[in-house]
Amino acid sequence: MTQSTAEQRENIYAIAQEITQALRRNDTAEAVRLLTDLHYADQADVFDALDDETQDRLIPLLDISTTADLLEELEEADAVEAVEDMPTERLADVLDEMEPDEAADLLGDLPPEQASALLEEMEDSDEVLPLLKYPDDTAGGLMTTSFIALRRGTTAQEAIEYLRAVGPDVDVPYYLYVEDETDRLIGIVGMRELVVAAPETPIERIMDPDVIYVRADEDQEEVARVMTRYDLTAIPVVDDDMRLIGVITYDDILDVVEDEVTEDIYHMANVSDAELTPESPVWQQVRGRLPWLLVNTGTAAFASWVVSHYESTISEVAALAIFQSIVTGQGGNAGSQNVAMMVRTIALGDLESRQMLPILYRQALVGLIQGLAVGAVVGVGAYLWRGNPYLALVVGLALVGNLFIGGLIGTLVPSVLKWLKLDPALASSVFVTAVTDAGGFFIYYTLAGLVLRHL
Amino acid sequence: MTQSTAEQRENIYAIAQEITQALRRNDTAEAVRLLTDLHYADQADVFDALDDETQDRLIPLLDISTTADLLEELEEADAVEAVEDMPTERLADVLDEMEPDEAADLLGDLPPEQASALLEEMEDSDEVLPLLKYPDDTAGGLMTTSFIALRRGTTAQEAIEYLRAVGPDVDVPYYLYVEDETDRLIGIVGMRELVVAAPETPIERIMDPDVIYVRADEDQEEVARVMTRYDLTAIPVVDDDMRLIGVITYDDILDVVEDEVTEDIYHMANVSDAELTPESPVWQQVRGRLPWLLVNTGTAAFASWVVSHYESTISEVAALAIFQSIVTGQGGNAGSQNVAMMVRTIALGDLESRQMLPILYRQALVGLIQGLAVGAVVGVGAYLWRGNPYLALVVGLALVGNLFIGGLIGTLVPSVLKWLKLDPALASSVFVTAVTDAGGFFIYYTLAGLVLRHL
Repeated sequence: MTQSTAEQRENIYAIAQEITQALRRNDTAEAVRLLTDLHYADQADVFDALDDETQDRLIPLLDISTTADLLEELEEADAVEAVEDMPTERLADVLDEMEPDEAADLLGDLPPEQASALLEEMEDSDEVLPLLKYPDDTAGGLMTTSFIALRRGTTAQEAIEYLRAVGPDVDVPYYLYVEDETDRLIGIVGMRELVVAAPETPIERIMDPDVIYVRADEDQEEVARVMTRYDLTAIPVVDDDMRLIGVITYDDILDVVEDEVTEDIYHMANVSDAELTPESPVWQQVRGRLPWLLVNTGTAAFASWVVSHYESTISEVAALAIFQSIVTGQGGNAGSQNVAMMVRTIALGDLESRQMLPILYRQALVGLIQGLAVGAVVGVGAYLWRGNPYLALVVGLALVGNLFIGGLIGTLVPSVLKWLKLDPALASSVFVTAVTDAGGFFIYYTLAGLVLRHL
Repeated sequence: MTQSTAEQRENIYAIAQEITQALRRNDTAEAVRLLTDLHYADQADVFDALDDETQDRLIPLLDISTTADLLEELEEADAVEAVEDMPTERLADVLDEMEPDEAADLLGDLPPEQASALLEEMEDSDEVLPLLKYPDDTAGGLMTTSFIALRRGTTAQEAIEYLRAVGPDVDVPYYLYVEDETDRLIGIVGMRELVVAAPETPIERIMDPDVIYVRADEDQEEVARVMTRYDLTAIPVVDDDMRLIGVITYDDILDVVEDEVTEDIYHMANVSDAELTPESPVWQQVRGRLPWLLVNTGTAAFASWVVSHYESTISEVAALAIFQSIVTGQGGNAGSQNVAMMVRTIALGDLESRQMLPILYRQALVGLIQGLAVGAVVGVGAYLWRGNPYLALVVGLALVGNLFIGGLIGTLVPSVLKWLKLDPALASSVFVTAVTDAGGFFIYYTLAGLVLRHL
């Protein structure tokens, strides 16, 4: 009986150490047992925690089926590394044992000549080949060809007998799909309906003809949205003629959801490579982080250029420089709040174009109120500190204006990017900062110029 | 046959309009048909798109079962509003028809006296009552009491017959749980194993004794993590004596994952109320957004106070004010990159304390490289623009220092907050901005002071 909590995960490292020690004293049986006693999801983590040398020693000791489970659970790059030195014949057996969609993903990551050699060696290559033609991020790229389809006219009893015969090899356990004579998808039957039906009932009498399906070229994000929306544990994939060509299961979708979320969070924070972790190699991190930081630096330089027009003003009243960053910073922060809310609403598929005008109106009002609040607080604070009502007024009004602008831009930019079919998360914060920086400085110093002799 | 794509969702609004028109010409049957023809997930969206008056007219026209489905799909606040004027007797029937966990959630959101009256009126209140004692965000708060448990010794055939008898009322369709004589959970049987087993096999022979379970007080985020990790469509919940008290299903976990992600994204953007959408009422938005904006304003004011110490320096060399915001802004941006990566790694449960030192070392290096790159670009740019090598050097070095600090703080703060059992997402950006703002100004103007006569 397995209890899986945070504490249990702390054991991962301990088990990895035990395996390393077992291999050091050449107790290979113990090393293998330590790994295979674990749930397959934990096996991958323990394997991950081993150093490269230990991994290379352990892999050839595992049987075909354990190796297949392990490769299915490992991250893509780690899986590729793990099979590097594996003989073609053995790897082909492992690939035959893997789920077709996972096997296809791994083959797609290997060098083309190695992949062709493996496909030639494999027995079940016909299950994998059709999957290789779809891009990874489409329904076709996610689906498995391992599913159960029955012809109209099959009885419940026949279906159960069929299940007994093929069942254990198929990993889409809960639904059966019903096809007509031309292989077109016409319905779906749950395992439970099958079990409780009278044995002689034709399957089309118990099937649900209202199948929710996706086409093979559908984007993975949309597939995730549909499955989440309708609480599906599996969704059938059809070709242009409505023929059933695959099934996407729940676990693949959870990965998609997590990946898409990581991508959104990273993009909003100007990290362009969503595969990065804090442990990624230094150069990979710099490559995935520096470009957008430089773009941001560019817009900041533009804002500096705006400030440079007021150099003589600043020479006269250096105190202005004290408050300039509050104005731009808080405009940017207010704008980021809107970017976050819009990006999330778009990601959840909850935004329709007809709602945009009322949303803009509402966000303008929120921006104004936030601007008045922050402007009043900072204005009063500035007056109490510096004793100059004009300076206080300039800071306060500039904040009102810049938070208003930030709110509007933060709302508008993500939806425009979405409308242009670009990623709202990636460029929004750069645009918003550019506007609230340059715009903030412009408003602030223009207002200051109007009352310069009082400052 | 339903195809669910972005296009289909555009119909939601059109159908809502048709319903409104049908009600206007008093064609109530057509209005109800338009709604009930839809998938229940779509019904909630269409209902949502109706104005309040139309909603109030439509609700009493729906039958008990449709109302129950609808309430299960609506957002909490909308569901509460929808049942406001419903007679107690009718609402009790609806609650009886709902999934126990959904009914408990709704009852928890109603005024206590109304909830007690309803529980007294309900027939199945015994299924709902045990659920009311658990906080919403724990395993107990997520679980349903509607599941199938069998005693050890039951045969496969008996299990199937039991399923035929109770099946349609139970919404946890794919697993059966096995208990010993003292009601302790000892195993799990998949529907498929049941179907393919010989009829006389005792259930403990086909069950998997390695059940992954959670305790009732486990946090929902941890439950989601376990279910995602092990690709589970349902997980049993046990009490302190290992007795099975409920089951959490896949659809509830997807909601948890989405809510937690929204919370992280919002918190990183200083939006404290994760329930907000761009359409939320203005005052609710201000309440959920202004507080952290003001906290941020406070740290920005502190940074301004740091700048104020260099007022005489700025009077002498106003050009310094031009570049000050680049230094603080890019330090903040670099720090945000680290916050995003750390928050995401923590959310996915991939961070162990033993990894912190190597990560800090690595991020320090990344921060340094990014600082050198941005510092060099801006330094060279500043020299070309202003022609003063000392000014260029001050700006460049300050950027190196501040991006280095930003990277370290952005890595450290989320993990310290996590270690203190606080939310890494909420406070991290405030801390990081505070340090990169105040620290950036300090480094920049201190360096400037050293070479002041050359500027």
